[in-house]
Amino acid sequence: MNSKSLYWILLFFLSLSCFLAQTHGKKERHGLDYLYKARLKQNSGVDTSLFKVIDHINEANVHPQVGLKQEDRIERLPGQPHVNFSQYGGYVTVDKSAGRALYYYFVEAHHSKNSLPLLLWLNGGPGCSSFTGALVELGPFRVHSDGKTLYKNNFSWNYAANVLFLESPAGVGFSYSNTTSDYDKSGDSRTAADNYVFLVNWLERFPEYKDRDFYISGESYAGHYVPQLAHTILYHNKKANKTIINLKGIIIGNAVINDETDERGMIDYLGSHAIISNEDVYQIHKYCDFSPNATTLSRECQTSYEALADNIIDINIYNIYAPLCFSSNVTTRPKRASILEFDPCSNNYMYVYLNRPDVQEALHANVTKLTHDWEQCGDTIQGWIDSPSTIIPLLKEFMDNGIRLWIFSGDIDGRVPVTSTLYSINEMKLSVKTAWHPWFLNQEVGGYTQVYKGDLTFATVRGAGHQVPSYQPARALSLIKHFLNGTPFPNI
Amino acid sequence: MNSKSLYWILLFFLSLSCFLAQTHGKKERHGLDYLYKARLKQNSGVDTSLFKVIDHINEANVHPQVGLKQEDRIERLPGQPHVNFSQYGGYVTVDKSAGRALYYYFVEAHHSKNSLPLLLWLNGGPGCSSFTGALVELGPFRVHSDGKTLYKNNFSWNYAANVLFLESPAGVGFSYSNTTSDYDKSGDSRTAADNYVFLVNWLERFPEYKDRDFYISGESYAGHYVPQLAHTILYHNKKANKTIINLKGIIIGNAVINDETDERGMIDYLGSHAIISNEDVYQIHKYCDFSPNATTLSRECQTSYEALADNIIDINIYNIYAPLCFSSNVTTRPKRASILEFDPCSNNYMYVYLNRPDVQEALHANVTKLTHDWEQCGDTIQGWIDSPSTIIPLLKEFMDNGIRLWIFSGDIDGRVPVTSTLYSINEMKLSVKTAWHPWFLNQEVGGYTQVYKGDLTFATVRGAGHQVPSYQPARALSLIKHFLNGTPFPNI
Repeated sequence: MNSKSLYWILLFFLSLSCFLAQTHGKKERHGLDYLYKARLKQNSGVDTSLFKVIDHINEANVHPQVGLKQEDRIERLPGQPHVNFSQYGGYVTVDKSAGRALYYYFVEAHHSKNSLPLLLWLNGGPGCSSFTGALVELGPFRVHSDGKTLYKNNFSWNYAANVLFLESPAGVGFSYSNTTSDYDKSGDSRTAADNYVFLVNWLERFPEYKDRDFYISGESYAGHYVPQLAHTILYHNKKANKTIINLKGIIIGNAVINDETDERGMIDYLGSHAIISNEDVYQIHKYCDFSPNATTLSRECQTSYEALADNIIDINIYNIYAPLCFSSNVTTRPKRASILEFDPCSNNYMYVYLNRPDVQEALHANVTKLTHDWEQCGDTIQGWIDSPSTIIPLLKEFMDNGIRLWIFSGDIDGRVPVTSTLYSINEMKLSVKTAWHPWFLNQEVGGYTQVYKGDLTFATVRGAGHQVPSYQPARALSLIKHFLNGTPFPNI
Repeated sequence: MNSKSLYWILLFFLSLSCFLAQTHGKKERHGLDYLYKARLKQNSGVDTSLFKVIDHINEANVHPQVGLKQEDRIERLPGQPHVNFSQYGGYVTVDKSAGRALYYYFVEAHHSKNSLPLLLWLNGGPGCSSFTGALVELGPFRVHSDGKTLYKNNFSWNYAANVLFLESPAGVGFSYSNTTSDYDKSGDSRTAADNYVFLVNWLERFPEYKDRDFYISGESYAGHYVPQLAHTILYHNKKANKTIINLKGIIIGNAVINDETDERGMIDYLGSHAIISNEDVYQIHKYCDFSPNATTLSRECQTSYEALADNIIDINIYNIYAPLCFSSNVTTRPKRASILEFDPCSNNYMYVYLNRPDVQEALHANVTKLTHDWEQCGDTIQGWIDSPSTIIPLLKEFMDNGIRLWIFSGDIDGRVPVTSTLYSINEMKLSVKTAWHPWFLNQEVGGYTQVYKGDLTFATVRGAGHQVPSYQPARALSLIKHFLNGTPFPNI
């Protein structure tokens, strides 16, 4: 068995646990490796403490925030073009005794900031920084190939909302804990709790957003983070019998939802997209047990996964048709950049930019002088102690509580593909309210959508990979506008 | 039922008959409409005269060709950049009494023309011109947006072979019959016979190619033309007990092969690519009879196809992720053009170019002053009298006779998608010789390939639509080189 195959045997387990990074290539392998170890330690099927809310909020967690907002104001990012909206960046302590603090980057809306909603964005991983969202996907700037200068994203989501990017949990990106043993106790449950404490304190710091309509968005493993945070918010609102956070809706894309269907959907997608052979699809379905209680891995299943591994290792599984990046260097002068044509080396430019001392200073980031670089998907977190096999019960809860629920899918992502998402939604056994139909932008089909009774809106983004706004920025902006406005895509 | 739906009910029948055009939008509808009528006239399932060769060749069909080659020499095409290879264009009479003549355009190889093989290219339809292959796909030039000037295709297949483009049958492109009733008698069988007569005469005109290794390539409905012509060649070689035409191999792409699996594969492809809903896929499989003997169309099947129609009408089904062309005009000055980035309006530029009198004169085309324009997929042919439901028996014949057989598939074509081709190959029940694996070009995965015992090589071209060389010119050139050299893609 070569190293490629071994890697994919690991991935097999990992897929069942629903862990995935958001980059490809070497970094991803690292990310997956450590999570594999976590999985072995855990040695369990379903997490039985499913969605238990850590009852975290008390006086000790809410700190005075007076004056901190102005301290967080970012005058100007190095190499940034002129803009008219305000930016903020800084830390919110979520556990004073442990010294655990989460970094955020906040961009107010281009216009109507006082009336537009507040939108939180979370990247997945687990272990991946939400600066990916900010600087490679939906934020107002992208980094030029020189790693020094920024250019505008005309399809930034802050044309539709005030957008808050959060690095979560501690150990991710610029977020940290002074108690490094915290990193070994990372997991879904504490991530939700910390994110909630972050939010309550952040709203103290930015009190003008306290009553604002609030939405949570995210992709990939944020399919866990987003619903779990929403669930925590609902729990505390109910417990306090008042609206602490004015949550109106959530939207998740190419999201980890339900391990069993996610895995089956991936296999079928890779088969129907001619990436693996139909014979391998057949073998995998025959010999692999994807159920949440599966504990063994048959030799036949392993063999089929080795074939799968050999066939996907050399493409970007997060966008199966995308060109690869063959250089880890930045350029002396910025290359001609276009928001509409995604540069496959964008992650490298972001890495260089965010590790520049002047950039970190401007962002008010890395104030404790971390011993590691800022990384898109780093390996500071060495364990992951809880990850339920499904978040479907939470989705049902939101539908029952009138929380707007949208699920989207970039249709050329092979990692959490559209088939997985459709299979997972199918598990919810919902009837159809508005039948499947195309939605349009600039006369082109932007994707397809179907609304389920309940209400749950599903929408694809045509020609988009895992990081939807990277690959289809205009369609992604149209999608988020429809979501925030609560306007369904017209049925024509 | 709206007109869209009606159109697609027609398409349903048409799909079963395996007719398809190669353009999209209005022209395609025309093309399909008349073929639907033909189908109704025919009112039959399987053609029982499957692959009967018209015994066409006798003294009367072979005409003296002395001096004609030099007359056909194209000095220079209007607006053409300088090149070092020779071009020829002209007519070969295939039926003197009827006045039926086929137009060809021939480009010799960039280098080593005396040793490189002769490669015939056929576009499909039926009813589509092989100038699509020449000016939009694999030929040495493409037409600028001004409709006047040409630019070089660095991935032209005449870097690998001497390439012969044939407009077939009479009524297509510049090919014609003075006996217009011929157009109502078009069909697979006579197309093969006429193509064969063309070839024998063309080799008289270009005798230096008589003993040259000869290959036939084509796409789409040429999945019928190519094997049927090859079969005719084999028949006459055997009958004459000598090599009249030195046929070495055939290669067909996104090819109509076997109606039943072609149709099932299309439905599954549209479902797994999130273009139609999974519910519609289920309904279609449940209620539609794709077998060659099907004569009725249930109401439920019709309804499901109406939903399908509504979902595909606004995308380019021949490249499901491609942008559309929104202008039928040419530009005053040529737009910046790139072979690597296909212009969705390319067909319009070709139309304008080929209808210019100076271009027709340079090509020695339209010498009889046709009453219609040159069209990519025209409506001169108003009927199609025979189209077998499968060409699998022919593919088996070639494998038994040592004729090289390759089948390729651009993997983002929704019309004759990769699933259809894989299902059709599966019908042949061949064992695997070399397992499914990626093939590479410039470090990127160019596609995937599998070799079957026999030998049959299947290969995908990643990120290519129905017209593979339009969308992935470099990968297409690599593919044809491997085919012509008879070198399998390496298994690494």
